[in-house]
Amino acid sequence: MSVKWELPPTLKWENDKLLLIDQTRLPEELVFIECSIPQEVAECIKTMKVRGAPAIGVAAAFGMFLSIKDFEGDVDLLFEKLEETAELLRSTRPTAYNLFWAIERMLQRARDMQGEETGKAKEALFEEAMRMWEEDIEVNRAIGRNGSRFIKDGANVLTICNAGSLATVWFGTALGIIRSAIEEGKKIHVYACETRPRLQGILTVFELLEDNIPVTLITDFMAGYLMSKGKVDVVVTGADRVARNGDVANKIGTYTLAVLAKSHDIPFIVAAPLSSIDINIATGADIPIEEREKEEVLSIKGKRLITEDVDVINPAFDVTPSRLITAIVTERGVCSPPFEESVPAIFHKQGGR
Amino acid sequence: MSVKWELPPTLKWENDKLLLIDQTRLPEELVFIECSIPQEVAECIKTMKVRGAPAIGVAAAFGMFLSIKDFEGDVDLLFEKLEETAELLRSTRPTAYNLFWAIERMLQRARDMQGEETGKAKEALFEEAMRMWEEDIEVNRAIGRNGSRFIKDGANVLTICNAGSLATVWFGTALGIIRSAIEEGKKIHVYACETRPRLQGILTVFELLEDNIPVTLITDFMAGYLMSKGKVDVVVTGADRVARNGDVANKIGTYTLAVLAKSHDIPFIVAAPLSSIDINIATGADIPIEEREKEEVLSIKGKRLITEDVDVINPAFDVTPSRLITAIVTERGVCSPPFEESVPAIFHKQGGR
Repeated sequence: MSVKWELPPTLKWENDKLLLIDQTRLPEELVFIECSIPQEVAECIKTMKVRGAPAIGVAAAFGMFLSIKDFEGDVDLLFEKLEETAELLRSTRPTAYNLFWAIERMLQRARDMQGEETGKAKEALFEEAMRMWEEDIEVNRAIGRNGSRFIKDGANVLTICNAGSLATVWFGTALGIIRSAIEEGKKIHVYACETRPRLQGILTVFELLEDNIPVTLITDFMAGYLMSKGKVDVVVTGADRVARNGDVANKIGTYTLAVLAKSHDIPFIVAAPLSSIDINIATGADIPIEEREKEEVLSIKGKRLITEDVDVINPAFDVTPSRLITAIVTERGVCSPPFEESVPAIFHKQGGR
Repeated sequence: MSVKWELPPTLKWENDKLLLIDQTRLPEELVFIECSIPQEVAECIKTMKVRGAPAIGVAAAFGMFLSIKDFEGDVDLLFEKLEETAELLRSTRPTAYNLFWAIERMLQRARDMQGEETGKAKEALFEEAMRMWEEDIEVNRAIGRNGSRFIKDGANVLTICNAGSLATVWFGTALGIIRSAIEEGKKIHVYACETRPRLQGILTVFELLEDNIPVTLITDFMAGYLMSKGKVDVVVTGADRVARNGDVANKIGTYTLAVLAKSHDIPFIVAAPLSSIDINIATGADIPIEEREKEEVLSIKGKRLITEDVDVINPAFDVTPSRLITAIVTERGVCSPPFEESVPAIFHKQGGR
């Protein structure tokens, strides 16, 4: 079934600038913010104007290119410049692996161009960023195809945060699986956890409504209630970083959902591009978890809930151990337990995208 | 250890009126709202200006008295008037059992006064409401004494919603247990789930700060993260209605917490006065669950999150099956598994308060 999806890409290269949907202004208005220098890209990542591990990765790639776009010196100095920018961009957010993966890929491309003319190197770096942009859509399409088997016709799918088109260049990872299932003719209904503190569930509702996908918004703690009533057939989430053993760092609350899913025998599916897999990290215990500012907990949409003297914690992510996960869906195929075997195997598998 | 608690009673009888702390104006300001007629009491219950099962019960008792305070006819007609008011008050909120218990207790007192003079009957009803007010504090004190054994010195206690002084006449049920533990000299730290959609966790933070009890505010889905890190020693919640088999209806999310606690081997303690036990209901499946207006989910503190066209669900409560509960603490003692035996036993136990 051919379905027309309405949402534009989350980021795009236009008139020598990186344009990003300003996600802090959704759902009120869909406007693009322009980035001409890497500092602006870094700021957009930090303040979550652009968010979602894959989108952050591709934005960072363009951020790398922006730093050398007008460079006119020696290739060696161009590389130095890129390394500076890499440091800036890496410092924005510590958990999502795609950020580090994308920066490293751009640096590697620059290394490959050592000895070439500066103009050629710049061209190669631009092409690399554009390739990552295109690949991200292809990867999400492939994740969708590989993951749709977990979504039965008529399914009620529960998701957390936004692992959708808005979290990627386009199409989405977790929501890409849902879109693929719909393209296959299945009728799907989504429960979107609002996902305090930053309420990215609202982005999910926004993007599903744009694409006419039935969705119900719930507060986070309603998830257990729905499961106890038999109203959730499958949980699908994204991933910010996957360890070699299949442990998954994702939006705070993902672990709670996984415990709930396990206790109700509900499949728990993680959608993750290979660029989210940190093969050098043995387990989730080694994944750095970002602690964000307390104001995110203390206020909602600019409305203060209580005095700022109140103690809060604000870990942006938690780690779901692989024993609670049914499958990790990548663009190369599906990892099943035992993940300590299947994750390294798919990571090192040749081509086949 | 003698501790001075700062919070005033949540409701009080003054100048022939029922005064209630307006909880919708907390934490910004602590002001009392005056009720002179039962319709005002009903409205306060419906709009959650007064909330918490025990507080609702006592407020309703005074609401019953308000309807006949100035009555000057025959005792038979006075009883008719009371039955009308009972109907009005019962229609406000369906889940908390204390409401129905308190109304029935007032009706029973009126029945006992059949044949007496109207003035005497009115006096008896006023005394009954006042007795319920005093008893509520004694009951909470007793729950605190009975439950403090579950709170070890140095414990991190996690709670949901507000089962505190503000949910009762004074002292609280779940927070009463915490206050008692502190009176015994234990050092306690509380994690308060913010409890979307209505954010009663903010009331908990407010009241604990008033009483200098260390508290950390978390968003609801952080509960699993904290447990996985070993940072929660015990979960203590209130109850809106307890079935004969020990199933507990309480604030939406309580079930999620109970599943989490079970999976981390953390004791899950429910604080419930006998007036919350509905001995006529076999299991939690029979407890009516209030569905509240969708606007509560769609907005926070008056700030709209997304268009009103969005589908939401808004069950105000969920049911925690007794198999997930470690103990139900009442004023008469502690119920332990098997609850289908211990709950009826304590309910029918003579006196001993």
